[in-house]
Amino acid sequence: MTAPLGLIAGLGDLPVAIAENAVATGQGVYVLRLKGFEESRLAAFPGAVIGLGEIGKLFSLLKQAGCEDVLFAGIVKRPNFKDLKLDLRGAALLPKVLAEAGKGDDALLRLMVKEVEKQGFKVIGSDAAHAALLAPSGLVGGSAPSQAAMSDIARGAHVVAALGDLDIGQGCVVCEGLVLAVEAQEGTDAMLERCAALPETIRGTIAARRGVLVKRPKPAQERRIDMPTVGVSTVEKVAAAGLAGLAVEAGGALMLGRAEMQATAERLGVFIYGFEPGLGT
Amino acid sequence: MTAPLGLIAGLGDLPVAIAENAVATGQGVYVLRLKGFEESRLAAFPGAVIGLGEIGKLFSLLKQAGCEDVLFAGIVKRPNFKDLKLDLRGAALLPKVLAEAGKGDDALLRLMVKEVEKQGFKVIGSDAAHAALLAPSGLVGGSAPSQAAMSDIARGAHVVAALGDLDIGQGCVVCEGLVLAVEAQEGTDAMLERCAALPETIRGTIAARRGVLVKRPKPAQERRIDMPTVGVSTVEKVAAAGLAGLAVEAGGALMLGRAEMQATAERLGVFIYGFEPGLGT
Repeated sequence: MTAPLGLIAGLGDLPVAIAENAVATGQGVYVLRLKGFEESRLAAFPGAVIGLGEIGKLFSLLKQAGCEDVLFAGIVKRPNFKDLKLDLRGAALLPKVLAEAGKGDDALLRLMVKEVEKQGFKVIGSDAAHAALLAPSGLVGGSAPSQAAMSDIARGAHVVAALGDLDIGQGCVVCEGLVLAVEAQEGTDAMLERCAALPETIRGTIAARRGVLVKRPKPAQERRIDMPTVGVSTVEKVAAAGLAGLAVEAGGALMLGRAEMQATAERLGVFIYGFEPGLGT
Repeated sequence: MTAPLGLIAGLGDLPVAIAENAVATGQGVYVLRLKGFEESRLAAFPGAVIGLGEIGKLFSLLKQAGCEDVLFAGIVKRPNFKDLKLDLRGAALLPKVLAEAGKGDDALLRLMVKEVEKQGFKVIGSDAAHAALLAPSGLVGGSAPSQAAMSDIARGAHVVAALGDLDIGQGCVVCEGLVLAVEAQEGTDAMLERCAALPETIRGTIAARRGVLVKRPKPAQERRIDMPTVGVSTVEKVAAAGLAGLAVEAGGALMLGRAEMQATAERLGVFIYGFEPGLGT
């Protein structure tokens, strides 16, 4: 009998897709849902709910469940560390956590991976657990990007790579050379919504689409934990913002529900494109 | 008799302060308000309203008024160049404008300066016309920043310098090492408003202020045209977002209504700080 996948889960479609896939492949799954970020669709799987500061409990539950591979997936906002309920091991780890958290998200994620691996678990990425999620290269859905859109993809790819070097975010929106918006802690959806509120002179509209959403991982990023993810709702928000399409780094982003994404892109008249990892770096 | 200042004006407090100062010093002013961005408080000054594409008219009006120095000030959004009403000279300039606009805002602004200077005018910055507007060094208002706030200022100064290299924007918000938001085309006010909507765990509140708004010019920026500007409403929005204060590059930003800014900062319990130009570069 194989060891079940240990899934440390936040909110969203990604942890659900991972859990369902682990069951479908016969590996099985043990889901630790994080308090404050409990995804209701995961309640049906074997597992437990644990607090963000219950690190000792996290390790012992994963061991009791017989897990070997551990995977982090789903949306979790950084807590206010002062308010966390800590168990003994959580308290012992807190000074390190605070030191790394002050350096940015990347440092914090790297620390989490390191501490889990110290316990003898192997941390794997969503792409390793479910390879079909990985974004392919080239046109994925809709009609091929125009020359203007390809230029915007190249500029966006460069901008996001540079933002990533600063540990800021994974996305931006570019329209005919102009960077309309940059993603930080608000997330992709909020960024797309504010693009729709910009003056129509500098952005596209549903009648005359212009501009591209570009997402790619940070260069120094712990890809096993924090891979950029797009899904049907991303395609819908890209369309609503009057953009021509969305582009992600091939092999550097996850696509959730690809067939439905493709159908949505066709229906709404936007493209989905996977650019080469070397672009703009 | 001195030649009146030629003021090409968009919206906001800055062109009003410049016009009032030019009158107060005895130089006088001739104001060209840009169609679509007519600041009502400027209607009382001598001048005219002209369209963004009426370049020939702009030059001839400035010459008729006897202007020598020309100053660009105020908020103007980039137009959709396809919809502009062009006069003959505007039409002749359009291919160049489109080529530079595709490279970003900086290239476009540099082209505007160059074309105005080709006509024999001297383009001057708001700081040259009204030196008292320039941000000083050190504490300007409120209580001195904490050590955590000083670290956030340093990180923000570095981030905005890097963003400027990419011709993206002039501001960001940092809270205890984490970049909460980055400013692009939406402007500073919208950025501050979305910080107030982030989870309280990663940001400050009015009861427990944390984090800093940082603004500085882009390194390659045409400072004569597009200097970052802060005023009373900036201080109010910084306070409403739960931030500890705002910091700008000393000598690299304009402060509008400094006495009122200081009083507002005192009243709301936030700081105003001018950091050294070398910080974070």
